[in-house]
Amino acid sequence: MTVGLPSFTAELLAAKKAKGLSFADLERLIGRDEVWIASLFYGQNSTSVEEATKIADILGLGQDIVAALTSFPSKGLGPVVPTDPLIYRFYEIIQVYGYPIKEIIHEKFGDGIMSAIDFTLDIEKVEDEKGDRVKVTMNGKFLPYKKW
Amino acid sequence: MTVGLPSFTAELLAAKKAKGLSFADLERLIGRDEVWIASLFYGQNSTSVEEATKIADILGLGQDIVAALTSFPSKGLGPVVPTDPLIYRFYEIIQVYGYPIKEIIHEKFGDGIMSAIDFTLDIEKVEDEKGDRVKVTMNGKFLPYKKW
Amino acid sequence: MTVGLPSFTAELLAAKKAKGLSFADLERLIGRDEVWIASLFYGQNSTSVEEATKIADILGLGQDIVAALTSFPSKGLGPVVPTDPLIYRFYEIIQVYGYPIKEIIHEKFGDGIMSAIDFTLDIEKVEDEKGDRVKVTMNGKFLPYKKW
Amino acid sequence: MTVGLPSFTAELLAAKKAKGLSFADLERLIGRDEVWIASLFYGQNSTSVEEATKIADILGLGQDIVAALTSFPSKGLGPVVPTDPLIYRFYEIIQVYGYPIKEIIHEKFGDGIMSAIDFTLDIEKVEDEKGDRVKVTMNGKFLPYKKW
Amino acid sequence: MTVGLPSFTAELLAAKKAKGLSFADLERLIGRDEVWIASLFYGQNSTSVEEATKIADILGLGQDIVAALTSFPSKGLGPVVPTDPLIYRFYEIIQVYGYPIKEIIHEKFGDGIMSAIDFTLDIEKVEDEKGDRVKVTMNGKFLPYKKW
Amino acid sequence: MTVGLPSFTAELLAAKKAKGLSFADLERLIGRDEVWIASLFYGQNSTSVEEATKIADILGLGQDIVAALTSFPSKGLGPVVPTDPLIYRFYEIIQVYGYPIKEIIHEKFGDGIMSAIDFTLDIEKVEDEKGDRVKVTMNGKFLPYKKW
Amino acid sequence: MTVGLPSFTAELLAAKKAKGLSFADLERLIGRDEVWIASLFYGQNSTSVEEATKIADILGLGQDIVAALTSFPSKGLGPVVPTDPLIYRFYEIIQVYGYPIKEIIHEKFGDGIMSAIDFTLDIEKVEDEKGDRVKVTMNGKFLPYKKW
Amino acid sequence: MTVGLPSFTAELLAAKKAKGLSFADLERLIGRDEVWIASLFYGQNSTSVEEATKIADILGLGQDIVAALTSFPSKGLGPVVPTDPLIYRFYEIIQVYGYPIKEIIHEKFGDGIMSAIDFTLDIEKVEDEKGDRVKVTMNGKFLPYKKW
Amino acid sequence: MTVGLPSFTAELLAAKKAKGLSFADLERLIGRDEVWIASLFYGQNSTSVEEATKIADILGLGQDIVAALTSFPSKGLGPVVPTDPLIYRFYEIIQVYGYPIKEIIHEKFGDGIMSAIDFTLDIEKVEDEKGDRVKVTMNGKFLPYKKW
Amino acid sequence: MTVGLPSFTAELLAAKKAKGLSFADLERLIGRDEVWIASLFYGQNSTSVEEATKIADILGLGQDIVAALTSFPSKGLGPVVPTDPLIYRFYEIIQVYGYPIKEIIHEKFGDGIMSAIDFTLDIEKVEDEKGDRVKVTMNGKFLPYKKW
Repeated sequence: MTVGLPSFTAELLAAKKAKGLSFADLERLIGRDEVWIASLFYGQNSTSVEEATKIADILGLGQDIVAALTSFPSKGLGPVVPTDPLIYRFYEIIQVYGYPIKEIIHEKFGDGIMSAIDFTLDIEKVEDEKGDRVKVTMNGKFLPYKKW
Repeated sequence: MTVGLPSFTAELLAAKKAKGLSFADLERLIGRDEVWIASLFYGQNSTSVEEATKIADILGLGQDIVAALTSFPSKGLGPVVPTDPLIYRFYEIIQVYGYPIKEIIHEKFGDGIMSAIDFTLDIEKVEDEKGDRVKVTMNGKFLPYKKW
Repeated sequence: MTVGLPSFTAELLAAKKAKGLSFADLERLIGRDEVWIASLFYGQNSTSVEEATKIADILGLGQDIVAALTSFPSKGLGPVVPTDPLIYRFYEIIQVYGYPIKEIIHEKFGDGIMSAIDFTLDIEKVEDEKGDRVKVTMNGKFLPYKKW
Repeated sequence: MTVGLPSFTAELLAAKKAKGLSFADLERLIGRDEVWIASLFYGQNSTSVEEATKIADILGLGQDIVAALTSFPSKGLGPVVPTDPLIYRFYEIIQVYGYPIKEIIHEKFGDGIMSAIDFTLDIEKVEDEKGDRVKVTMNGKFLPYKKW
Repeated sequence: MTVGLPSFTAELLAAKKAKGLSFADLERLIGRDEVWIASLFYGQNSTSVEEATKIADILGLGQDIVAALTSFPSKGLGPVVPTDPLIYRFYEIIQVYGYPIKEIIHEKFGDGIMSAIDFTLDIEKVEDEKGDRVKVTMNGKFLPYKKW
Repeated sequence: MTVGLPSFTAELLAAKKAKGLSFADLERLIGRDEVWIASLFYGQNSTSVEEATKIADILGLGQDIVAALTSFPSKGLGPVVPTDPLIYRFYEIIQVYGYPIKEIIHEKFGDGIMSAIDFTLDIEKVEDEKGDRVKVTMNGKFLPYKKW
Repeated sequence: MTVGLPSFTAELLAAKKAKGLSFADLERLIGRDEVWIASLFYGQNSTSVEEATKIADILGLGQDIVAALTSFPSKGLGPVVPTDPLIYRFYEIIQVYGYPIKEIIHEKFGDGIMSAIDFTLDIEKVEDEKGDRVKVTMNGKFLPYKKW
Repeated sequence: MTVGLPSFTAELLAAKKAKGLSFADLERLIGRDEVWIASLFYGQNSTSVEEATKIADILGLGQDIVAALTSFPSKGLGPVVPTDPLIYRFYEIIQVYGYPIKEIIHEKFGDGIMSAIDFTLDIEKVEDEKGDRVKVTMNGKFLPYKKW
Repeated sequence: MTVGLPSFTAELLAAKKAKGLSFADLERLIGRDEVWIASLFYGQNSTSVEEATKIADILGLGQDIVAALTSFPSKGLGPVVPTDPLIYRFYEIIQVYGYPIKEIIHEKFGDGIMSAIDFTLDIEKVEDEKGDRVKVTMNGKFLPYKKW
Repeated sequence: MTVGLPSFTAELLAAKKAKGLSFADLERLIGRDEVWIASLFYGQNSTSVEEATKIADILGLGQDIVAALTSFPSKGLGPVVPTDPLIYRFYEIIQVYGYPIKEIIHEKFGDGIMSAIDFTLDIEKVEDEKGDRVKVTMNGKFLPYKKW
């Protein structure tokens, strides 16, 4: 349904559904975070032959999937401005809180950036009487601007 | 230096600098998170007359600032695709991890979104021998799609 | 005829036409609003297995449709600026009345937004001698900006 | 704070604030809906000299405002995709519900559009224990496509 | 050759060519203007089953075409800025004469628009010694802005 | 109120208003069509020193205006997609009727275009009981594609 | 390899290559300029049945090609800003020399344009010791702006 | 009237007009082509102090102009797609003849480009009974793609 | 996985993988730089029949590949702003260092450009205890702006 | 002449010119690379109070400049696609060589990127009989994608 997805994404998601596995199950079986595994399914990350084979075995898939998961993907899936409401909210956070985030990071660290490569992202469900909450934790290495 | 900022932002930042205050100091003095205070400085949020007066007093500013901080701002500052490297990294995270995040939130919560309104954002410095890390925690209410 | 529609949309619309059913008929049979049912047909909302099965039965369709209607869709169908005249008029209303709507909502409720998730939308035909009128009623929860 | 607003908008809003009037007050004093009055303030509609004079008198403003309110404005204020979260939600509604709305209007009326000119828009606050709700009612004449 | 055209357009144009009919011939046979008939061929308008059947009969086409011509189409075919020189000239006319047209319509009618729905468009060939001329006549209902 | 207009446009429109003249009056006084005169006011056409002087005299303006009206202007005022509803309707006509117009012109004339330079445009008010109508007549030289 | 090309372009280019013919050869055989013939191959111009048949015969192609070369094409192939370096250089010339060209044409001819329809374009190779040069000659009719 | 022009352009054009000089006159006085001189006026090229001083003397301008004409300019003036009809025609030529030009240059020279830097551009008026013609001659060094 | 790649790219990469060859191996076998060979694989450069045949032989591919590698390609693969993080970093370097690079090149060479055609690009791995480094060396002929 | 530059850039460049200093001179005086110094002038990097004071002293400028050079700038100056020919060539290199560069970096290093933050850029003039050459050396830390 989504333009631009690699063809193996649908195959992986269908196999996972057929096996009745959640990403949380895969996290336990593979020993990687569920978000990272989902990013692998969407062709946004790559892994070793060993790990790819393990995933293919769990899902009952063959060598084609191993080849796909071990190649270096072209990353970046979305349209320029996301139209999906869930994804758009993260874009809106950048629009609204982008400069404030920059101010605080600069104040705490100096001139530089948070790496999006040496980086992890976790999602938790926080139960709450007034309505459960989504907790997203991003953790990236600070990279100071080099002077030369 | 940034196009589209409200005129009072420079005034607030200059007063804060002149007083030698960090946003962390303001957090202690005002009792709000430093990111939220920075978002107020950038005209992305508004507050009550009482709180605005308190901020103006701390910074040695007058009624104009109180008026500015209590009006309902037009939000969203950035260009469509951010050019600033620090802010761009967050845009890249949406491009690369947008669909994986959607998968995981849907798996944990069902069809819906994380609110960007009933929402908080914190930034911490995590010291690390291999290089300090930026930890960004977003916490938003899950809103399930209503059927009618 | 429309780029980007999920493939099951045409199947659902054809089955509905073959059965001679209107969306108003489906509203009576399923117990959901006709606009919501249409949004389900267009892959913009999802539902439970029970309800999806009921819809498939009414339309004489099989398990593929049930699977499609119960998966979490990527939402947002249109081009950036709609070219279809009927849909464009709603875009024009945002261009012309966007800021006035913002003024009135802020005056009545304070700083916040109308939810597009905890939200319903109804369409009525109002008969009128000078020409019938379209009445669109949107009803969304007000979400105040959280301070933290 | 908003790019592209006519210069008289700030003047009108400041005078209204100084007089301690809400748009609801203006609705009672002028006999027009508050949304329409706000659209006049934002240079999106025009009116007669009589009504413009009445508004100028209520707000303690002069002939310049009368001239501004009686000229034919260039309409359409926003950026192509709105960045303000309140206004964006209406854009999102078009992205998500555009085709479903089209289906229902076509089913009820035939091939044509809802006018955005012979059109009214009202905003109500609906009190609700689980959180107040925004009710937006649009009412536009149906215009069938002419064949020739 | 043109992206985004409905698939039946090529079928209709091929059948018309095979029968050796011009749009002017179709105008005489069907009793509608040739421009409107061309817009029907391009999926930009719809018609009744009776008329669609008549057209299908004239062109020797079947029920599929009748179904296509009686469904409500998604309108708007072009790229944002047309690249075809013939179509671009009309875009250029809007760029160059848009505001002047607005001035004159406002002066003659007041604040409002020319309808593009209750609207006809005719094209004539005007023979001229210095080179034949294209005469395009647009005729749309004036719709005054409603105040409420 | 309109971005990008030449500075003399406001001066010309104000002088015309102060003199109580309509464009129709100017048509009678100057001997040019009102649309063309409006296009001159908007800096979209130029004229001779004699005619510019005549216009300046009628409006009580000086040599600066004569200089402005006799220089060769940079044409094309609008945003890429017009946001003003009156002007947008003409853009919509291109989106909906662009290819049909192309079909008919090609059928009547062969491969070529309607000139937007050797071109006139007239606007008439057609009184009608069901609502007055706007009649726009464009008349441009047909230019056949040269083969070489 | 190029998006948006008509399907017959590849067929024509392959036939030409198979016959070992250059465009210069075709110029001699057909009696048209090589650039115009290339534009015909790319679906940017059309010709008579006689000439199309002659070309089809030379290339050993059939009636499909004759039909393609005699239909009125949708012109304009490129992306908004060309990415191909050879084609981009011409775009850059417009960016850098657009206004200077306008100044000189206006000074020599008055207010008007160079036609891109009553127009020829030739390409010559000019041998030069320091490196051969490309000479592009455009020749278009001057069209003065009509006043009315 | 044109956004983005360097401020000295208006000064140079006004001085030239006051002296009653055409670009053709400047060509004779300075010994450079009129198009190049116009490009210098528009801040698209730079020159030596000697030549800049000569131009300033001819036009009766001072050291500021010399400084402006000898600095290295940021080139490229236009909007992405030109709206001015004269300049647009050149953009259209790229859209329509871009690939054909590429074919012919490749056939004559091999894989490479025409330089837009080691490049000249001339404009001539060719008198013609049927209407004068604009002749534009571009002459750029062919640069073959280097293999390494 | 990447939109817009020529179809032979996947074939070449698969053959190279099947033979267990790196681009560094191909560099040794063919006598061209690995970056240039990769650009040939991606349809961004072309070569002679001899060299193409040599490459086809090494990879065990046939005449189709020779034909593809000897034709003149349409260059420029990417989206307007790259979404892939590796490629984006180079775009960011232009955003951040574009004007500084221009200053230094102008200071060292005068008004002109670095050729991207008479140009080589090399990539080296520089081992470093703190983390290996990527060294990219671009070497292009300086082209001074011609005056005429 | 360039939109969006910080106001102090012109001041710094003017002071440097008045002192008769090249960026190469500043490199010697300050002990930083000339490209980095130019990036500081253009508000794309920041430095310590000590270094900023040293630069201000050399250029005869005051505390305002020190404040400007020590604040954390919003980076990214250019338009989305650069129009300046010198800067465009670097954009073209990304369009043409982006994927090939990605292939080679992945082959040498694995899945990851070259940092644009822990990064240096040098520009050398390489004298050559056939025309001097620009040598640009980029050196950035390789950052492997973290798995988690």
